[in-house]
Amino acid sequence: MRLALIGCGLIGASAAWAMRRAKAVDTVFAYNRHMESALKAVELGIAERASPTIAEAVREADAVLIAVPVKAMKAIFEQVAEVLPPDAYVSDVGSVRGSVVADARAALGEAFCRYAPIHPIAGGEKMGIDAARADLFVGTNAISTPDDGMGDDAVQFWENLWSATGSKIVRMSVEEHDSIFASVSHLPHVLAFGYVDAIARLPDAERRFTFAGPGFKDFTRIAASSSAMWRDICLTNRAQVLAQLDHFTEKIAELRAAIEGGDAEGLDRIFERAASRRRLIINSKRPS
Amino acid sequence: MRLALIGCGLIGASAAWAMRRAKAVDTVFAYNRHMESALKAVELGIAERASPTIAEAVREADAVLIAVPVKAMKAIFEQVAEVLPPDAYVSDVGSVRGSVVADARAALGEAFCRYAPIHPIAGGEKMGIDAARADLFVGTNAISTPDDGMGDDAVQFWENLWSATGSKIVRMSVEEHDSIFASVSHLPHVLAFGYVDAIARLPDAERRFTFAGPGFKDFTRIAASSSAMWRDICLTNRAQVLAQLDHFTEKIAELRAAIEGGDAEGLDRIFERAASRRRLIINSKRPS
Repeated sequence: MRLALIGCGLIGASAAWAMRRAKAVDTVFAYNRHMESALKAVELGIAERASPTIAEAVREADAVLIAVPVKAMKAIFEQVAEVLPPDAYVSDVGSVRGSVVADARAALGEAFCRYAPIHPIAGGEKMGIDAARADLFVGTNAISTPDDGMGDDAVQFWENLWSATGSKIVRMSVEEHDSIFASVSHLPHVLAFGYVDAIARLPDAERRFTFAGPGFKDFTRIAASSSAMWRDICLTNRAQVLAQLDHFTEKIAELRAAIEGGDAEGLDRIFERAASRRRLIINSKRPS
Repeated sequence: MRLALIGCGLIGASAAWAMRRAKAVDTVFAYNRHMESALKAVELGIAERASPTIAEAVREADAVLIAVPVKAMKAIFEQVAEVLPPDAYVSDVGSVRGSVVADARAALGEAFCRYAPIHPIAGGEKMGIDAARADLFVGTNAISTPDDGMGDDAVQFWENLWSATGSKIVRMSVEEHDSIFASVSHLPHVLAFGYVDAIARLPDAERRFTFAGPGFKDFTRIAASSSAMWRDICLTNRAQVLAQLDHFTEKIAELRAAIEGGDAEGLDRIFERAASRRRLIINSKRPS
């Protein structure tokens, strides 16, 4: 099985690597906007060939895995559609489903029945192929979002490939996906970026940052990630991010009123409910 | 030098332990509201004696270190004042300075000149004496906040003792302390508690938590800490916490407008400024 990998970042390179290791893929043709990362994929033994164009990578492939930022997906789908072999399957790893599935539907036309996206819930502070690992997905969830027009064979094909990486396949609707990840992933990024920038705008910001303790560092670690990627995710999943932001803002107003009013019981109720709920979630550390 | 330790939690027990190791303290009399922790301090070799009352711990001491929650400080200062030997020094480790210094001033009377508080910037997810470590403070900051009426000798005495734990003494005013820690410590706790509770109130909360990734776990780790302690910190440092919360809320409104208006540039400016600033802060991990 020959895989065309479009986008050799952390997720794409790790996925192709894991699929090869599991012998679910025999050959990988790697394309990347900057050729260096595709050449690095060859050097690491992830790919056989670094393709200078999308067309060259896709033309002989049995399956095409697109792992580029969500805003870039549309143009890639269009280029892939032009050269896609008649039986080849297509997938992407985007963190937002609604807008990306709509882009795929519009660009792929009849080939949309051979498309099925899977969003792997993995990542790390470090981006790019240098951080790639064949075991990145072991034990993580991979979200499959079958939708009208996607063929059962395509969904099954990609679910099998992702199972081979060691991740656990979970199915949900496009809408549920975008709402869940707006709340547990997109919103905390907005809040962390906003929080760090709020302090950075204070006149004595540098002195304040000097006293950042371990709690501050944990809380803001996600604000060190790619600002461009998260900007695009917020804009492509706009409605769900706004809904979750508004829900959070109501809670903050409630907390503000409790603090201002000296309402120890009200504050305690919210804090204690949050603390007991949070303690149920395993304190996994990021892989270092 | 005989130290009375009032409160044998993570901070108090670790401090007494570190001071002993450094031979800055010879003997420790440990008092704790629940006697078990004071007995545990003896068992660990931190203290010579578990005192059943504050009076018994303080009466023969050269110095009294108070390490109890900020709301409990007032009553402890009052009890200590009744039995404090004429030359003994007093300190506390509270995370809030304004209200605690006012409580000490009111309760200690003439003995206030022998009082100087130091707030060590250390801690961990795990609370209580079982998590105590003699090296907890090595390389951390300890904030000394000299104020009107505190004797220079008292300030110097406690700064020396805390230096012996391996922490670095930083002096600042009571006001600056409370503003800085409202922004880099108290506010993120409010936000993390509020964020987890906002999700917990959604009808499909349990399914959402299932998909919490490493970013979510980092961002919410501080929400697993003591809800009662943070409730009290928010209420005793109310004005500063509200000021920082309002400053943050303005930033969130700005971000909301940028997301709703599809303002990629505006969003990028805030996210990128935050990301570059955050990357400058060393990604220290909590000790596990």
